Amino acid sequence: MKITRRNMLAQTMAIGAATSVPAMAAAAPRTVERWGVFEIELAGPSGGNPFVDVTLAAVFEGAGKQIRVPGFYDGDGAYRIRFSPPELGSWRWRSESNAGALAGKTGAFTAVAPGKGNRGPVRVSKDGYHFAYADGTPFRQIGTTCYSWALQSDAKCAETLKTLAGAPFNKMRMLVFPNVPSVATNPFARTGDGPRDWDPARFDPAYFRRYEDRIQKLGALGIEADVILYHPYDEKRGYSDMKRADDERYLRYVTARFGAYRNVWWSMANEYDNIETKAVEDWDHLFQVLVAADPHDRLRSIHQINTYYDHRKPWITHASVQNGAAVLDDLRAELHRAFALKPVIFDEVVYEGNIAKRWGNLSAEDMVQRFWYGLIGGCYVGHSETFAADRNADGSWLGQGGSLAGHSAPRLAFLHRIMEEGPVPGVEPIQAWWNYHLGGQQNAYYLRYFGAEQPTEWPVVLPGKGPDSLQSYRLDIIDTWNMTVTPVEGVFRMAKKNDYDVQDPARPTVKLPGKPWIALRLVKVQA
Amino acid sequence: MKITRRNMLAQTMAIGAATSVPAMAAAAPRTVERWGVFEIELAGPSGGNPFVDVTLAAVFEGAGKQIRVPGFYDGDGAYRIRFSPPELGSWRWRSESNAGALAGKTGAFTAVAPGKGNRGPVRVSKDGYHFAYADGTPFRQIGTTCYSWALQSDAKCAETLKTLAGAPFNKMRMLVFPNVPSVATNPFARTGDGPRDWDPARFDPAYFRRYEDRIQKLGALGIEADVILYHPYDEKRGYSDMKRADDERYLRYVTARFGAYRNVWWSMANEYDNIETKAVEDWDHLFQVLVAADPHDRLRSIHQINTYYDHRKPWITHASVQNGAAVLDDLRAELHRAFALKPVIFDEVVYEGNIAKRWGNLSAEDMVQRFWYGLIGGCYVGHSETFAADRNADGSWLGQGGSLAGHSAPRLAFLHRIMEEGPVPGVEPIQAWWNYHLGGQQNAYYLRYFGAEQPTEWPVVLPGKGPDSLQSYRLDIIDTWNMTVTPVEGVFRMAKKNDYDVQDPARPTVKLPGKPWIALRLVKVQA
Repeated sequence: MKITRRNMLAQTMAIGAATSVPAMAAAAPRTVERWGVFEIELAGPSGGNPFVDVTLAAVFEGAGKQIRVPGFYDGDGAYRIRFSPPELGSWRWRSESNAGALAGKTGAFTAVAPGKGNRGPVRVSKDGYHFAYADGTPFRQIGTTCYSWALQSDAKCAETLKTLAGAPFNKMRMLVFPNVPSVATNPFARTGDGPRDWDPARFDPAYFRRYEDRIQKLGALGIEADVILYHPYDEKRGYSDMKRADDERYLRYVTARFGAYRNVWWSMANEYDNIETKAVEDWDHLFQVLVAADPHDRLRSIHQINTYYDHRKPWITHASVQNGAAVLDDLRAELHRAFALKPVIFDEVVYEGNIAKRWGNLSAEDMVQRFWYGLIGGCYVGHSETFAADRNADGSWLGQGGSLAGHSAPRLAFLHRIMEEGPVPGVEPIQAWWNYHLGGQQNAYYLRYFGAEQPTEWPVVLPGKGPDSLQSYRLDIIDTWNMTVTPVEGVFRMAKKNDYDVQDPARPTVKLPGKPWIALRLVKVQA
Repeated sequence: MKITRRNMLAQTMAIGAATSVPAMAAAAPRTVERWGVFEIELAGPSGGNPFVDVTLAAVFEGAGKQIRVPGFYDGDGAYRIRFSPPELGSWRWRSESNAGALAGKTGAFTAVAPGKGNRGPVRVSKDGYHFAYADGTPFRQIGTTCYSWALQSDAKCAETLKTLAGAPFNKMRMLVFPNVPSVATNPFARTGDGPRDWDPARFDPAYFRRYEDRIQKLGALGIEADVILYHPYDEKRGYSDMKRADDERYLRYVTARFGAYRNVWWSMANEYDNIETKAVEDWDHLFQVLVAADPHDRLRSIHQINTYYDHRKPWITHASVQNGAAVLDDLRAELHRAFALKPVIFDEVVYEGNIAKRWGNLSAEDMVQRFWYGLIGGCYVGHSETFAADRNADGSWLGQGGSLAGHSAPRLAFLHRIMEEGPVPGVEPIQAWWNYHLGGQQNAYYLRYFGAEQPTEWPVVLPGKGPDSLQSYRLDIIDTWNMTVTPVEGVFRMAKKNDYDVQDPARPTVKLPGKPWIALRLVKVQA
């Protein structure tokens, strides 16, 4: 029996790993950061098929909780159990297995205060429509997608990580199974040379070790890893066409391996409705398997091409939506919240790029526009890029990662700054069903976005009634493309306009620059 | 035992009641129109509380089907069972009851071909997003609402019916329980003088007899009766705050009484989420009671104020939506289909009127606009009016019926004509997620609506690829307000424009009149 104690995310974070101690401290008081990873390594049987034959879990007790955490086989007779302590304090554990060498092992550790940069996993915020880290810090999602980046060479991955370190993205959508040319293509043991010659009952630990290395490196950059478990683009290999028992084993393996990393989110599938071998009932079942297999209760979604999945189903934590037109209007975006009653991320809204396909040739302006409309509608948006010399998206940022060639990223960083300066837990649509096109926080903070329109004036009318609505506001003119914030002199002192609205009778309007991509921000001040 | 044979809808229809024969033909071969009403009247106990004590149903056998139809107590010892035969041919029946006088009665009748104007009940069309009568005729919904019209005096009701006879509306939303001053206010037996002094276990048959008379008279005009079973506006009387057993009895009574009329639709509630005494679980339960109680399987919906009900639930046949802003954009409307995966009716989109409230002061132009955007989005819309001298909606068309004071109705009649000339089963959104703002039928028929915009030119670009898209079209300029259709000379012969679109290189654009409320119609012609 060998116990390693790792706090992987904290270790790989550039700063603040002060509470981390070297691995392999087999005895003595052991500590791990709250929300870090405590890993047990056990030696066990390597004969037969350990992926199928051997059961393994550990029950962790601490902070008044008892949590059963499944383990996994990592090859060469090594078994691991990974647990991320949700609470501070002492934790004890005891292993369970059908293999004598793995059963009845015990141990203990202490979960200590998280180091700098460790804010815990992202959860749905209490209001139900936004996200926050476990420590309460709002998580303002600015996503991107590099489908098979994790499966590229270490050099290419390093390039992607370097790009990400200088980019605004805090969530990465990434496939477990490859969809474009990749270095790593075999999640399962090969049984021959044909694309379908693999054994769904034998994982290739090296493949998953590579993938979890990428997860950790994203974590070190403060980026959530939105792990996409299935996709429809590998008919050749058929990884998304497995039988139910194989699917269940796969989900259990992935959750046991990856689920303890606090930056992991689960996306059940990309374009689930394009996977012809699975029906909605299958996805429902697999979600239930996922929930049961994941003691860390990571965020869960599913992404569609044509038919929206029913995001109200209880295992869905937030809606992941593909729809390019929905975020050309904040009120279209808002409707997705009204249907899901959960946070909404437009994870695919067509890509900034230059390929011939209409899904991959947005201008940077149009990409940025979609983020702003999504924000005003109380939702979140995802980016990606399809610039490619060969007009083929495979080698683009979308397919393999690498470097960015577009011009939206700096504007999304600017947008993220605006979001961070905004209300907690996030921007709410304001009386959306009355067509105001305002987001913010009632009687405190408002955003208005004009997209491609070029107004020269705007009537400063806010919805609201009663004493709480009679606030004073400072107003900023935000050029979302040129990334400038220009305060307008003085304040707007709101008075009752009618039964529904307030307005400053002395300053009923504001002059605007008559340019596209302008937004307004009104922030309450003490009058 | 007395058997009456009625074919109520056919009888009350002005024309085509040829197959109807006088009631009370107790012996001899009996006939009823398919989709008409066959009524059994039986004499039984009048002591105790027959509404609670006596069970009654009849099993009908015919056309290879066996259908169990619950009966109801109509007062004075009279019991009735109403059945609308879904198929032609011979039907036999046998009664079941816990009362000896009502049990084991038998009879037979023949369902004959429907008379003129009898197209059967409206169902969801096969494609899943539209409506059609049982005989296959498309039902192009143009709804209105007069909440408590059925509960007014016969004279006032006659006025409403006269108005309807000259109006385009083919669906009427109507409450069972009053929400504004009414002649009929007591669905239940009174037990005292206070508003809450009534016995939920004793219905007042006269109240329901009046209501079903209104249902039949609407049927005679070819108007569907969208019967709203609960609403939140009678806290004083509390009809929507009954206990579960009383709710169940009420639903069973109403379905037994009204369900055989082929023009009945069920709306479980108006603004369900404003009824504080019922939670979503209660509504789910009541829907299951309704389904079980209604052998005629009438259409079922529920209407909200704030929180959309989950229209994907299996007992919902179509989405009934309140949202005024959703139908200011065809793509907002379309999203409701994408969520419900069912037909969508925007039953409440704010009203044409002159009251002080913002929900009741739309211009006629704005009302008509909402219908058009809804249509382009593949959905349907509902009208009502709130013109009132006292600025109070109670006495308006919305509250009590009567006469129309607004100007939208003729334009909605014009719209209905356009719909009738359009594709079967209805107008589909065309590549909505690519922002074309087109409705119609791919490669055959297109509508484009400009609302308040006043374009002077439009590029005649249609989405489509491959040989099927290379059609020729005639183009009409429709003035939706002035109700004119102006054909444009010649045809547009489509050729490939790019991978996604077609266009006539010789006629790439069409001139438009630069006025608001303009629509375009392109209809495929043989080139």
